Amino acid sequence: MKKSLIALAVLAATGSAMAQSSVTLNGRVDAYLSSKTTGVGAAELTQTGLTNGGLTGSRWALNGTEDLGGGLKAMFKLENRFSIDDGTSVGGFSGDAYLALAGGFGTVKLGRTYTAFDDARALSNSSSVFDSTFTPTADVMGTADYMSRAANGIRYETPVFSGFSGAVTYAFGEDKTPTTDANDLISLHVKYATGPVAAAYGYQEEKAAGATANKFHQLSASYDLGMASLSAGYERRNGTAVTGDDKGYNLGVNVPVGAALNLSAGYAREETEVAGATTVKATGFGLGATYNMSKRTILYTGFKQTKAENGAGAETAKVRLFGLGVRHNF
Amino acid sequence: MKKSLIALAVLAATGSAMAQSSVTLNGRVDAYLSSKTTGVGAAELTQTGLTNGGLTGSRWALNGTEDLGGGLKAMFKLENRFSIDDGTSVGGFSGDAYLALAGGFGTVKLGRTYTAFDDARALSNSSSVFDSTFTPTADVMGTADYMSRAANGIRYETPVFSGFSGAVTYAFGEDKTPTTDANDLISLHVKYATGPVAAAYGYQEEKAAGATANKFHQLSASYDLGMASLSAGYERRNGTAVTGDDKGYNLGVNVPVGAALNLSAGYAREETEVAGATTVKATGFGLGATYNMSKRTILYTGFKQTKAENGAGAETAKVRLFGLGVRHNF
Amino acid sequence: MKKSLIALAVLAATGSAMAQSSVTLNGRVDAYLSSKTTGVGAAELTQTGLTNGGLTGSRWALNGTEDLGGGLKAMFKLENRFSIDDGTSVGGFSGDAYLALAGGFGTVKLGRTYTAFDDARALSNSSSVFDSTFTPTADVMGTADYMSRAANGIRYETPVFSGFSGAVTYAFGEDKTPTTDANDLISLHVKYATGPVAAAYGYQEEKAAGATANKFHQLSASYDLGMASLSAGYERRNGTAVTGDDKGYNLGVNVPVGAALNLSAGYAREETEVAGATTVKATGFGLGATYNMSKRTILYTGFKQTKAENGAGAETAKVRLFGLGVRHNF
Repeated sequence: MKKSLIALAVLAATGSAMAQSSVTLNGRVDAYLSSKTTGVGAAELTQTGLTNGGLTGSRWALNGTEDLGGGLKAMFKLENRFSIDDGTSVGGFSGDAYLALAGGFGTVKLGRTYTAFDDARALSNSSSVFDSTFTPTADVMGTADYMSRAANGIRYETPVFSGFSGAVTYAFGEDKTPTTDANDLISLHVKYATGPVAAAYGYQEEKAAGATANKFHQLSASYDLGMASLSAGYERRNGTAVTGDDKGYNLGVNVPVGAALNLSAGYAREETEVAGATTVKATGFGLGATYNMSKRTILYTGFKQTKAENGAGAETAKVRLFGLGVRHNF
Repeated sequence: MKKSLIALAVLAATGSAMAQSSVTLNGRVDAYLSSKTTGVGAAELTQTGLTNGGLTGSRWALNGTEDLGGGLKAMFKLENRFSIDDGTSVGGFSGDAYLALAGGFGTVKLGRTYTAFDDARALSNSSSVFDSTFTPTADVMGTADYMSRAANGIRYETPVFSGFSGAVTYAFGEDKTPTTDANDLISLHVKYATGPVAAAYGYQEEKAAGATANKFHQLSASYDLGMASLSAGYERRNGTAVTGDDKGYNLGVNVPVGAALNLSAGYAREETEVAGATTVKATGFGLGATYNMSKRTILYTGFKQTKAENGAGAETAKVRLFGLGVRHNF
Repeated sequence: MKKSLIALAVLAATGSAMAQSSVTLNGRVDAYLSSKTTGVGAAELTQTGLTNGGLTGSRWALNGTEDLGGGLKAMFKLENRFSIDDGTSVGGFSGDAYLALAGGFGTVKLGRTYTAFDDARALSNSSSVFDSTFTPTADVMGTADYMSRAANGIRYETPVFSGFSGAVTYAFGEDKTPTTDANDLISLHVKYATGPVAAAYGYQEEKAAGATANKFHQLSASYDLGMASLSAGYERRNGTAVTGDDKGYNLGVNVPVGAALNLSAGYAREETEVAGATTVKATGFGLGATYNMSKRTILYTGFKQTKAENGAGAETAKVRLFGLGVRHNF
C-alpha cells in the first residue's frame, strides 16, 4: 500500500496563503503491563494483563481555531477515547466535544466539556501519580463521586485578572416530562495562580430528575518549590439520604530528578456518613516514576494500594495495582 | 459549504513532490440553544436545552480524488455524523460512504449515498430555513416520508447537457430468503438548471420484502430574483394500505440583506388519505436568520410552528421550536 | 501535553520545514457487485448485491513513528475497519491497535495485533485470490479455525538474521475468577525468506477459561518463478472433544500478464475428525483477476466455489460467489 500522508493545512484557493487556520489531528496511546489485586477474603483475585491507560487514557482528537477578527475566535475540539489494549471505543467523542467562541470577554464552550468543578479537583491531583491510574483518589473518593464531564452544557471561562480566574458550567437535563422537571448540573470554580502558587475553590450541584441534589465542595492548592512540587485538597459532599455525606483530603508530592526522571507520591483519605453514622472509612497511597525517552514518549511505573472498611472496622474493599508502561503522544 | 481542506498531499520523502493527490479531512460543528414545545393537551411539554445541529448536523469526513488518466477519476467520501451537544455518534459513516468512478460518461457511486429523489426534494427546500431544523417540512411531511439515503446501492449521475442532468439510484436489499424476494429501492431525478432558474422531477419506489411499495413523486422549482430567491415543491405519495396516500406542497423565500445577513421563511402543507378518507391534515411555517461572522462561522436563529389534525378536525400533534446557535466549518 | 500536529503541521508558507514528524492518515475502500449462492437443497439461496471488501476490507488508519535516538523508535498504528457498502463500522480500531518500541533487539508491539501464527498462514495465502474474499480457504478451513488477531497482547518480532526471522504473541485473558484461570493465547512463527523463496512454520494455542486448548500447526512456502508465483500450505489442528481434529492443505498460483494484469487461482481441502470419525470433508477453489488502473486503484473480478460433506458423503454446505469490483487506496 502506497501510504499517502494527510496532513495539513487549510489551503486557500491559490494553495499558497496558508493563513490563520490550524486544524490539527493529534492524540495519545498509553499501554502498560498490570498486576491488579481486588476483593476481600475468598473473593480476592489477582489479574495480570496488558491494559489501557496507565498514565492517562488513549485518545485521538480534531482541534481547530478560526480568527474571526476583532479579537474573536471560533474554536472546536472533538476527542475520541479508545482502549489501545483491544482497540475498542465507546464511540463518538466521549472526551471533549465542543464548539467555542472566545474573545476579550472570555470563552464560551457549547457541548460536552469537563465541568468547572473538575478544574478545582484536578489542581489537588497535580502530582504525576495523582494524574494517573495509580492515584489512590479514584478508589478512595470513588463511591458516588462527582461527574467530571457534562454533556448538553454551556461552560463559560473568564479571562485572567491579576492571577484570578473563574469558570461556570450549566448542563441541561433532557428528561423533563409533563409532570417532573429535568435533571441538571451547576458547577463553578474560582482560581488564583501566580508564579509557583495556585489555589482554587470548586462547587458542583448534581440534580437528578425529581430528587435531592448531590452537592460537592472542593478546596485545593499547589506549591512548586523547584526541587519538589506539593499539592493538597479538601473535599466535602452533602449527599442524599442514600449517598450520605463525605469528607476527605488528598496530599501529593512530585520530585524531578535530573532532566528526564520524575518521582511522585500521593495519599488520600475519605469518610462517609449516612444519617450521621459512619459507613465507610477509605484510605490509600500511590507511588509513581516517569522517565522521558523523548519529548513525546514516556516510560513509567506505578504502584497503589487502597482499602475501605465499614463503621465496625471490618475491611470491605481493597485494591493493589502495579504497572509498567509506555505512553506516546502524536 | 466552503470546504476548507485539511491538508492533503502525499508528501514525498523530500516533501516537495506534492503531486496529484487531494485527500482531505473536513467537517462541521453546529450547536444551538433550543426551546421546543411538543405534545397536545395534558402531554404538552416545553424543553429547554443545548442541542446539536440547528442549521445542519455536525459531521467530519474524509474525501479523496485520484486522477486515473484519460479523463477518468477515482473518488471516495466517508462522512461520520455525530452530536456536538454530547459527543455521541451512531458510529461508522452514517452520512455518505461511497467509492466512485467519474469520467465523460458521468459518475458512478458505489455504497451509501443520498438517493436521486432526494436531490429533487432538496431543490424545493433550498431556502435557508428549509435546509435546517427550522423547516416545517420535516414535521408536516414526516409520517412515512421517503428515505433520503440508501445503503448497498449504485448511484449514476449523468453529465450536464445544455442545463439538463439526471441521476438514478438502485439499492439492493439484503433480506432475501428462499421463499421471499429482497426489498429494494429505485430512485431517479431529472433536473434543468440555467442561470437563476432550476426545476426538477423526482421519483422513488421503496419496496419492503414481500409487501406493496411506497411510491413518491416530487416536482420542485427555484428562481433567484437577486433581491430574493424563491422555491416551491409539490409532492405526492402513493402508499400502502397502511401508510395511505399523501399530497402536499411547500414554499420558501430567502432574502439576502447586505453581505452577511440572510432572512428566510417557509410554509408547508400536507394531507394524508387512508382508504380514501382524510386522516391527517398538517401545516406549518418556519422563519430563519443567518449572520456570517466569517467564511466559516455563522450565527443563526430560527423559529418554526407546525400542527396536525385528524379527519374530524381534532388537533393530534404540535411542534413549536425556537433556537439560537452557531455553526463552524473546518 | 505536547501537541504534535499531524502534519499537520500547518505548513509554513514555504512548506519546507517538515521536520521529524511522520503521522499519517491512510486507508482503503473496496466495493463490488456480488452474486452469492449458499445453502443446500430447499435452503439454497442466491443473493445479488453491492458488498464491501471483495479484495480486502475497507479501512482507515492513523500511523506514526518517532525517532527516540540510539536506534530506538516509538511507533503506533490505529486501524478502523468499516463497510463501504452501508457505512457501518464495528467501532473503535478493530484492525490493528498497538503502541510499539523498535530497535536493534527487534520490535515489541503492545495491544491488538495479528497473531504470529497468522503470518505463517498468510504466506500460504500469498496469491491474489487467496488474499481476498474469493479464497476457498475461509470456507474450507472455516469451522473453528484459528484467531487471526489477539487483543490485550504482546507481540515480539526478531530482527532478520541471514533470512531467518521469528515472532511470538502472548495475549492475556481477562476472565480470571477466584476459582478459574483466565483464557490466553500463545502464538509463534519462524520464517525463512531469501530472494524468490520463503518458508514458515507457525504454532498457536488458544486456551479457553478452564477448558482444553485448540492447538494449530502450519507449514507454508512460496516460490516466485518470475512468470508465476506459487504458494502452498499444510495445516493441522489438535482440537477439543467438541471441535475435533483437522488436517488440510491449500495451493495457489499467481500469474502476472503484462504490467497491469494479474491472474490467480487457488485450491483448498480439509478433513475434520471428531473422536476418530470423519465428520467433515470440505474442498473448494477460487479464481481471480486484478487490473491496475493506477498505483492506487484496482479493478478486479473473482469466483469461488466450495462445498462440504459429512462422513456419510451427504452434502452439508455449499458456497458459490461471483464478484466484480473496484478498490482504491488513499
